[in-house]
Amino acid sequence: MAGRYDGAYGVLAGLAVLRALDEAGHATRHGVELVDWTNEEGARFAPMMGGSSVYAGRLTTAEALAAPARVGAARVGPAHAEPVGEARSTTTLGSALRAIGWAGTDVVTPDEHVAYLEAHIEQGPLLEAEGLSLAAVTGVQGMAWLEVTIDGEAAHAGTFPMESRRDALVTAADVVARVHEIGLARPGVGRATVGRLAVEPGSPNVVPSRASFTVELRHPEAAELDTMLDEARSAVEAAADARGTRASVHLASRTDPVTFSPVVRDAVGKAVAELGHPPREMVSGAGHDAMQVAARVPAGMLFIPCVGGISHAEAEDITPEWAIAGAEALLLAVLALDDALDERAAEGLS
Amino acid sequence: MAGRYDGAYGVLAGLAVLRALDEAGHATRHGVELVDWTNEEGARFAPMMGGSSVYAGRLTTAEALAAPARVGAARVGPAHAEPVGEARSTTTLGSALRAIGWAGTDVVTPDEHVAYLEAHIEQGPLLEAEGLSLAAVTGVQGMAWLEVTIDGEAAHAGTFPMESRRDALVTAADVVARVHEIGLARPGVGRATVGRLAVEPGSPNVVPSRASFTVELRHPEAAELDTMLDEARSAVEAAADARGTRASVHLASRTDPVTFSPVVRDAVGKAVAELGHPPREMVSGAGHDAMQVAARVPAGMLFIPCVGGISHAEAEDITPEWAIAGAEALLLAVLALDDALDERAAEGLS
Repeated sequence: MAGRYDGAYGVLAGLAVLRALDEAGHATRHGVELVDWTNEEGARFAPMMGGSSVYAGRLTTAEALAAPARVGAARVGPAHAEPVGEARSTTTLGSALRAIGWAGTDVVTPDEHVAYLEAHIEQGPLLEAEGLSLAAVTGVQGMAWLEVTIDGEAAHAGTFPMESRRDALVTAADVVARVHEIGLARPGVGRATVGRLAVEPGSPNVVPSRASFTVELRHPEAAELDTMLDEARSAVEAAADARGTRASVHLASRTDPVTFSPVVRDAVGKAVAELGHPPREMVSGAGHDAMQVAARVPAGMLFIPCVGGISHAEAEDITPEWAIAGAEALLLAVLALDDALDERAAEGLS
Repeated sequence: MAGRYDGAYGVLAGLAVLRALDEAGHATRHGVELVDWTNEEGARFAPMMGGSSVYAGRLTTAEALAAPARVGAARVGPAHAEPVGEARSTTTLGSALRAIGWAGTDVVTPDEHVAYLEAHIEQGPLLEAEGLSLAAVTGVQGMAWLEVTIDGEAAHAGTFPMESRRDALVTAADVVARVHEIGLARPGVGRATVGRLAVEPGSPNVVPSRASFTVELRHPEAAELDTMLDEARSAVEAAADARGTRASVHLASRTDPVTFSPVVRDAVGKAVAELGHPPREMVSGAGHDAMQVAARVPAGMLFIPCVGGISHAEAEDITPEWAIAGAEALLLAVLALDDALDERAAEGLS
């Protein structure tokens, strides 16, 4: 079983849950609905998570539908912050939905719902490496994104002495190595990545006058994310001082970590245990619709592994065993939640 | 006095020498000719130093004239190894010379000449910094150019743990820092530059799967240049090993250092002394027509400073004082050479 779009597995698992409930003739106390969010990836229409953002009140329906189609290759991750090219199509998310007959008219709001569950592939390598099939997701990492520009001095690579150079790329190299260490210093939870770097003038025999790059930091705790940001800024300053260059740092985006509802986490944990799987909790490194929903409705997720941790690529794949384990856990978590919400309603929490 | 093309100063200085000899009615024992080499820069038509390469027999006239015009911006330095873009014009050096009426028919060979002198701006910052106006050039640095590709593994910057990454850019950053050290370890004479670096896929939230970059090394001694090459290769291997990536290294070009003729160097040194300037010898970091000529005819150069060491840029500039000192030194060096060559002819060396 392979999922070209990583939203597909969650929807298929949810469909399997509804069918199982129906075939068993089991009546839950709460209504159970299945949602296939529009435009989770944002690959063609930015922002990503458009449907769930509208649901959570973070985006108006009009704003979401007006998103222009992007011309160029689809990109991985938070596409809203990264236009691929200048070119813009006249196609919008709204016109594209109308063209395929998927432009619905119903208004759906969080007021109708008491909990939200989402099954997803991990998009990372941990579960497979640990030989596990299931994890309860405790939340989503916070993320910050810096845009850094180093300005040095272009010089002839043959004539200009090493001692007098102000090399923007050497400065950037210092920062790249240090940013990697900032992530490594927080084993398992921290992430620190320089994914984009451009050098000017970009000629083999000219000392680089400018290096521009991104620094992307993630951590499940907001305070620690801020510490990582401080360390990255310090690394840029120290490198520029050491190399005689000038640095500018711009915070392009920062999103707080999301902590999922303990009620939903417990329901998932209970389901995993009932199936005889070892307990495993995990913070999601990637963004998901559940992040948006969590702002309004108690929400949570369960992960199944994916082969080699690969996602957003042709090679993305899962095994039938993982798929079945995930659907079974989703079913049991729905039932556990159905019970738990009744209990909590009695405690005045519904 | 500003020279937009750095060949211009040498030709103007040579013209001043011819005028001075003519006005003084001074008859040299050897004929004195002035040459303005075609296509020294190679900015539009690769290879650079085309005219002097034909003179030295390293390129045929037909090969030089067939050089296609490059579409795109002019670049600094050894343009022959660096096409700016894929696009190629149908214009060739030959057709462009015919179009401006500069396509000569005379064949000029080294057999006609017994020595060669070239005046040039330093294209580096040393003379100006030392408060000097003149230097005798002892030779041209050897240069080697590596093309390096690091292959790692693309991964989601949010989900993929730091410990498991095989980050191509972090590997490249290690090499960039080490290459800089390789140059610094040879104060005054070594040059080591990473001027171009590209990262794939180049997305802020994807761990880089590939980094491609150039390593450009220069040294006045061939053996030391080879040691630098070895050190750079070792740095690439060590970084790839440490970061779990794979590296490939390609030697794109290597030119041996050139040592100028002692006779010509002495003539320049004598001229500098006669003018009352302090003695200063210098190795050229940049390539010059004299490099090509030196393969066939005893050759040498003299340098004057340029403002801020800047060359191949709009800001390239010299002072009238430097220009005059250079032309005077060139005149005296021609006269010293005229004498020296007679003496050496008597010793059977002409």
